[in-house]
Amino acid sequence: MIPPVFILVRPQMGENIGAAARAMLNFGLERMRIVDPRDGWPNSRAVAMASGAGRVLDQAGVFADVKAAVADCDFVFATTARGRELVKEVVTPERAMEMTRAMAGQGKRVGVLLGPERTGLENEDIILANAIVTVPVNPEFPSLNLAQCALLLGYEWRRQEGTAAPSVMVLGRTEFATRLEIEKLADHFEDRLNAAGFFHPETKAANMKANLRNMWGRLGLTRAEVQTFHGMLRQIAWKLKRQADEP
Amino acid sequence: MIPPVFILVRPQMGENIGAAARAMLNFGLERMRIVDPRDGWPNSRAVAMASGAGRVLDQAGVFADVKAAVADCDFVFATTARGRELVKEVVTPERAMEMTRAMAGQGKRVGVLLGPERTGLENEDIILANAIVTVPVNPEFPSLNLAQCALLLGYEWRRQEGTAAPSVMVLGRTEFATRLEIEKLADHFEDRLNAAGFFHPETKAANMKANLRNMWGRLGLTRAEVQTFHGMLRQIAWKLKRQADEP
Repeated sequence: MIPPVFILVRPQMGENIGAAARAMLNFGLERMRIVDPRDGWPNSRAVAMASGAGRVLDQAGVFADVKAAVADCDFVFATTARGRELVKEVVTPERAMEMTRAMAGQGKRVGVLLGPERTGLENEDIILANAIVTVPVNPEFPSLNLAQCALLLGYEWRRQEGTAAPSVMVLGRTEFATRLEIEKLADHFEDRLNAAGFFHPETKAANMKANLRNMWGRLGLTRAEVQTFHGMLRQIAWKLKRQADEP
Repeated sequence: MIPPVFILVRPQMGENIGAAARAMLNFGLERMRIVDPRDGWPNSRAVAMASGAGRVLDQAGVFADVKAAVADCDFVFATTARGRELVKEVVTPERAMEMTRAMAGQGKRVGVLLGPERTGLENEDIILANAIVTVPVNPEFPSLNLAQCALLLGYEWRRQEGTAAPSVMVLGRTEFATRLEIEKLADHFEDRLNAAGFFHPETKAANMKANLRNMWGRLGLTRAEVQTFHGMLRQIAWKLKRQADEP
């Protein structure tokens, strides 16, 4: 069972990175990734705050962008209270960790995105996730910080250790596409549609592309289906090209 | 149903008192008591840290000792990782909040003792409690602070509120495609792919088509996404047709 990897996206204060490492290690989670930390890496304030959890930081991978950080993940959660404008499943930490345990039990790699302190995750980050996890806090006083989010998710991971296997998601031996494979499919479609002049008017192009990428990320495509989609695009292009060559 | 009162015993740093207030209010808990705070009361650092949760501090009762603070409680939990030398039930936060809900439902008052930052509760405090609550942290790295303890207990209180509530929350006002719309999309793709010679060899065609239809049915596409897929196919076809016409 592969424990989830917590991915800190553009974290600002080193102290908070260290505090997140401590929070994780409380519940036995050691796999951290860091995307584009504001103050560079390594960060002495992070190390000082992490104290006995320093090995979480030592082992942490640092990535230039979210896309690279989630490339080998089979399933990605985005931790956010927002993102309602995107069509995406929103689950509680409890449900998210149930799903994570079910997938991890099948050898799948699950990533959890945690946003920067002030602003949280951007839509372009959330698009790369399969589902959103939102802590059901008091709507009149939502004030969880980065380490507290990590703490609650780690707590749920650990709490469910003892409980009977959850009856969620019959995935069978289906192989789902990795995030990298999904990315490449989205790229293939985007290139082909760009060439076909699909993204017009120009002012709406960015939004259209974002919606499409969000959709690809959400659908839960299998590896075979991704290959099928690539094949469809190639075949249609080939056929119409041949028609053009033989008028 | 009377929510539990969180009793901070001899807290040291004002910041931690404020942070505990914030943690509590995240989960709708507003009843705090403070026993013999090191730096007196009121405490401006506590107020500054509590920020929007200032009303938790404003309403907090201050007591000279634990005995006075728990005097009106029907049941008291002591939050500690130690205290095993005392014969006392030790429960998880999950179980503690189950018990609290059961008692609160009968009009009983439940108090939760949270110890000072460095040393935790003393045996003489724990003796005043009915049971011990211990967060099941990694034995090799137990590092929960005061506010994090309050956060996890508050989270459990809130989590159990809506056991019946669905864990999958909302998808906003997303309109999902009807089965008929999905059927028509599958038809459109199948026609286009047929024309492009995608379904070969002949012996596998039926199976390929069945797999594709199964996929469309499974994906949970929105109405807008179905329109986008139709648009993609039309646009690619139109573009390549035009290329053919203008060699």
